[in-house]
Amino acid sequence: MSKRTEIQTILEDFKPRVGQELTVMGWVRAFRSNRFIALNDGTSMGTLQVVVDFEQIPEDVLKQISFHACIKATGKLVESQGAGQDVELLADTVEILGAANPEEYPMQPKVQSLEFLREKAHFRMRTNTFSAVFRIRHGIAYAVHKYYNDNGYFYMHTPIITGSDAEGAGEMFRVTNLDISNPPRTEEGEVDFKEDFFEKPTNLTVSGQLQAEIGALALGKVYTFGPTFRAENSNTSRHLAEFWMIEPEVAFYDIFDNMDLAEDFCKYLINHILENYSAELEFLDQRIQNLEKNMPKNERRAMGLIETLRFVVDNDFERITYTDAVNILRNSKPYKKGKFEYDVEWGKDLQAEHERYLVEKKFQKPVIVRDYPASIKAFYMRMNDEQEGVPGKTVAAMDVLFPGIGEVIGGSQREERLDVLKTRMADMNVHEEELWWYLELRKFGGAPHAGFGLGFERMVQFITGMGNIRDVIAFPRTPGNAEF
Amino acid sequence: MSKRTEIQTILEDFKPRVGQELTVMGWVRAFRSNRFIALNDGTSMGTLQVVVDFEQIPEDVLKQISFHACIKATGKLVESQGAGQDVELLADTVEILGAANPEEYPMQPKVQSLEFLREKAHFRMRTNTFSAVFRIRHGIAYAVHKYYNDNGYFYMHTPIITGSDAEGAGEMFRVTNLDISNPPRTEEGEVDFKEDFFEKPTNLTVSGQLQAEIGALALGKVYTFGPTFRAENSNTSRHLAEFWMIEPEVAFYDIFDNMDLAEDFCKYLINHILENYSAELEFLDQRIQNLEKNMPKNERRAMGLIETLRFVVDNDFERITYTDAVNILRNSKPYKKGKFEYDVEWGKDLQAEHERYLVEKKFQKPVIVRDYPASIKAFYMRMNDEQEGVPGKTVAAMDVLFPGIGEVIGGSQREERLDVLKTRMADMNVHEEELWWYLELRKFGGAPHAGFGLGFERMVQFITGMGNIRDVIAFPRTPGNAEF
Repeated sequence: MSKRTEIQTILEDFKPRVGQELTVMGWVRAFRSNRFIALNDGTSMGTLQVVVDFEQIPEDVLKQISFHACIKATGKLVESQGAGQDVELLADTVEILGAANPEEYPMQPKVQSLEFLREKAHFRMRTNTFSAVFRIRHGIAYAVHKYYNDNGYFYMHTPIITGSDAEGAGEMFRVTNLDISNPPRTEEGEVDFKEDFFEKPTNLTVSGQLQAEIGALALGKVYTFGPTFRAENSNTSRHLAEFWMIEPEVAFYDIFDNMDLAEDFCKYLINHILENYSAELEFLDQRIQNLEKNMPKNERRAMGLIETLRFVVDNDFERITYTDAVNILRNSKPYKKGKFEYDVEWGKDLQAEHERYLVEKKFQKPVIVRDYPASIKAFYMRMNDEQEGVPGKTVAAMDVLFPGIGEVIGGSQREERLDVLKTRMADMNVHEEELWWYLELRKFGGAPHAGFGLGFERMVQFITGMGNIRDVIAFPRTPGNAEF
Repeated sequence: MSKRTEIQTILEDFKPRVGQELTVMGWVRAFRSNRFIALNDGTSMGTLQVVVDFEQIPEDVLKQISFHACIKATGKLVESQGAGQDVELLADTVEILGAANPEEYPMQPKVQSLEFLREKAHFRMRTNTFSAVFRIRHGIAYAVHKYYNDNGYFYMHTPIITGSDAEGAGEMFRVTNLDISNPPRTEEGEVDFKEDFFEKPTNLTVSGQLQAEIGALALGKVYTFGPTFRAENSNTSRHLAEFWMIEPEVAFYDIFDNMDLAEDFCKYLINHILENYSAELEFLDQRIQNLEKNMPKNERRAMGLIETLRFVVDNDFERITYTDAVNILRNSKPYKKGKFEYDVEWGKDLQAEHERYLVEKKFQKPVIVRDYPASIKAFYMRMNDEQEGVPGKTVAAMDVLFPGIGEVIGGSQREERLDVLKTRMADMNVHEEELWWYLELRKFGGAPHAGFGLGFERMVQFITGMGNIRDVIAFPRTPGNAEF
């Protein structure tokens, strides 16, 4: 095809191109007065004004220049006389690459509801809101790889199909190529998984952590970035059945190193977007202001989107223990006034309402809570020594809580002591045979190590300010929904 | 934990650190004369010589300094008197972080077979060969993201769980959370997938291409990099049931733009490794030479590993049509002498032996074959006009063939004409209802576009020279094997 010039290239450096004959291709965002096309090609938020002479362009072409029609235009780039743009393209020729008959096309040049757009996931990326979200999503993903690469970590692809269900019993998806209608059976009448593809039951992974530990105890510093799955029947704005997770795992790190890494990493991601996607952020910031205009003040955000992001990168995260958190909560006004739905008691997990109080009311910034009761945490988390003033046993676990979205990171120092680990596994009913290799990692050449998991979509939500997690992943998977 | 200095940091810039008191942590690669430890921490191929004074170190510690034991050593860094290293650490203290009793530890300081090491996937990354492979694997993955980011592409996460089986009928894994032993049934006795998590049958994706086309027709240039799956019972050195694929998809690209992109992209990846992982490549190059030493000459590689990589980046890929390929093959010596196992005839797919002849004998470099018979290619590939001298209908498809590994890339220009696409789908029995959104992409704001898929593990094989694909992914999934 004859080469095009990308619109972002023209907009960010138009001077040397003025007077040149250029070809652009993209989707019509608006067509005013049968003369001015606002053309966007996805490269940025910006549109190029393409000016057509309706006496020169054939009638049938002109008629097809409509919202989201795809066109190719060739002409001279000139400085614009009108307000609102530096340059415009005076089109000699316009070719319709793909019409979009407005009588039939479901997208319209006005605000359409996010719910409606979710059903039109094959078109929503053409809108300002979603193109901004998905460019930023890319930016965050790239920053993840750049951060770890530049800091000497190695990217590991941990398995998606796993024979282990140590972590997610009951919430895992089964993977099979048996005939479900009529599976092979053993003599005892059980489903004969020896006949399945992997010759045993397999599931979709809930986390790459256990395998990432293998990498950390060989290469020192590794991270994963891959899809993870929960067959959990949660129809909320914070849950997906399929989501992406980033899991660094580091040899020779303890829980304090781990907290430092988590804070530095989060700030790096946010800074990368502040520095490289300002047009997108400004658009999304304005979008939220428009949405909140008619809301009562107490339902509006305390700070604007960009202000929030700057605040997070400019301030230290608050760091407290779980025991501190319980004491703060029990002394809080909402607790004393009976405003919390769930009780606060040492040994019970913190609920979203409690986390929100800590982050949004008490500290008004990200909070890292550590040293949780062993009884509510996973088997692989490192047992702490008894601590003064702490009523029960704790593990070196940490959660990073963010304003508006709650937990974005969960992590821990891992139990490297074989005997302690075995006791924990027995207590929590995790079978040794299934994790023989995980135990051997402690038996041969083990080391203290730590890591965490960052829910990628939660971070995208935080940075874009989108309220529903289904709007930050291209094709959300939720109960009853695997469309596209 | 008290902070460590990474061994790579010391080795690459030792001068300013000589005389300093440093702490290092890592795994023992060798222990000579009860005095000299070669310590590796995974950061690079290099080892630091740690010198212990056996009169100063407690007997029980000394006894535990063995192959792959994990230790922490603190002492002064001095210039080395011995040959083979610039500096060494005179250890004041040595602490055993994780012993590795040689009586029980399965890994040994000698060459162990790749087959054996596959069963010890939790330890094999500690070996020179596998640590080199997995550092390079990281490097290639990072280069993928850097290439596309720097060229204005957006990374898209296409869905892993899909409700469509348009592409991979019969070779897909089923995803379910029904009780396979006793699934719910409809009144007609069929399995009632309305009761399943997604309320319909779902599978693991075989490709993100169709969804990536959605992104390309909104953001212009996108790529995917995610896991894909084949429930194919192939126990070969080139097949995995779970592998990673990179799929760029570009609006306004035709098949020739697509070939340019594929060639440029492959060369970029290889260059990135040549420039950043020379120690790893040299080790792997030497490894192959050692392996081939005792082989008959005709079974050895024509060129060394690094020589091959340089040759690929320094030369243009050969570009031919399928029809050219058939003509070349039918005029070839092996064809005339009846040496090919499979026949060569226009309309039949090229077999590995044919591809190997073209790449390794005829052209001795990467070859891009395009314009394949429509009858052997997928429904979404763009139908070519009739071509002179070509006996049948062709599509604008392309395969990139590499020496030693065969096809690394398969791609095409996509059929953007709604009527042509519908005819092809009907001919090939692909149901329109299932791909309603794919058709709508052609109906509203469509455009010419093209893309391809690069098999990531194939590229890692090519760059590392590893003969078996199971040795370039951390935890291979193959028929009967989902261990770890």
